[in-house]
Amino acid sequence: MVGQDAGCCPGLSAAPLGEDQAADLAKVFKALGDPVRLRLMSMIASRGQGGEVCVCELTPAFDLSQPTISHHLKLLRQAGLIDCERRGTWVYYWVLPGVLDRLAAFLSTTQPAGVTA
Amino acid sequence: MVGQDAGCCPGLSAAPLGEDQAADLAKVFKALGDPVRLRLMSMIASRGQGGEVCVCELTPAFDLSQPTISHHLKLLRQAGLIDCERRGTWVYYWVLPGVLDRLAAFLSTTQPAGVTA
Repeated sequence: MVGQDAGCCPGLSAAPLGEDQAADLAKVFKALGDPVRLRLMSMIASRGQGGEVCVCELTPAFDLSQPTISHHLKLLRQAGLIDCERRGTWVYYWVLPGVLDRLAAFLSTTQPAGVTA
Repeated sequence: MVGQDAGCCPGLSAAPLGEDQAADLAKVFKALGDPVRLRLMSMIASRGQGGEVCVCELTPAFDLSQPTISHHLKLLRQAGLIDCERRGTWVYYWVLPGVLDRLAAFLSTTQPAGVTA
């Protein structure tokens, strides 16, 4: 997944990015580059590690149709940020472990130890 | 500037983002959500703190016209990520101090101490 590759990169400030790395990482940032998707991501991420959210809890927070919300969630999933599972009537979403910390490490200019493992 | 506001936010994983915060931050991620802009950002950021790059060094790295590169640089500037100054014939670009570390802190799930100052 693209998000997991972020851990392998030397960091945005370490050296000029190659074309392939830039293309992969741009997809992740593009997925976050929309207010609805950023709010969805925040609602899911704020459940903490191992936490998950039912789509039935996400949709009521927006003045948008269920298909529109599902489309935004699909883009976040395609970017390697979240994953989901259908259980009965509902789909449940969670943030892929470590993906946000790897992105943070990629952006950080200080490259804290222990985050890129 | 939007990028500077990132330091004030509780963090993507801390609590669901409000609409205004999400709109502001989405602009920053959208600016990074393009391979050319991400490479430009990396070329500028890899000069380190206080470093700057002449646009005359940026353009040759791409198969794109000078106006196209300038447009991408303008979007990065409007997002609060970089600033520039014309000196003589050329325009010089640098990353705004702290903006990448504030973005990293916003994404991090561990909220390292000392980054949000």
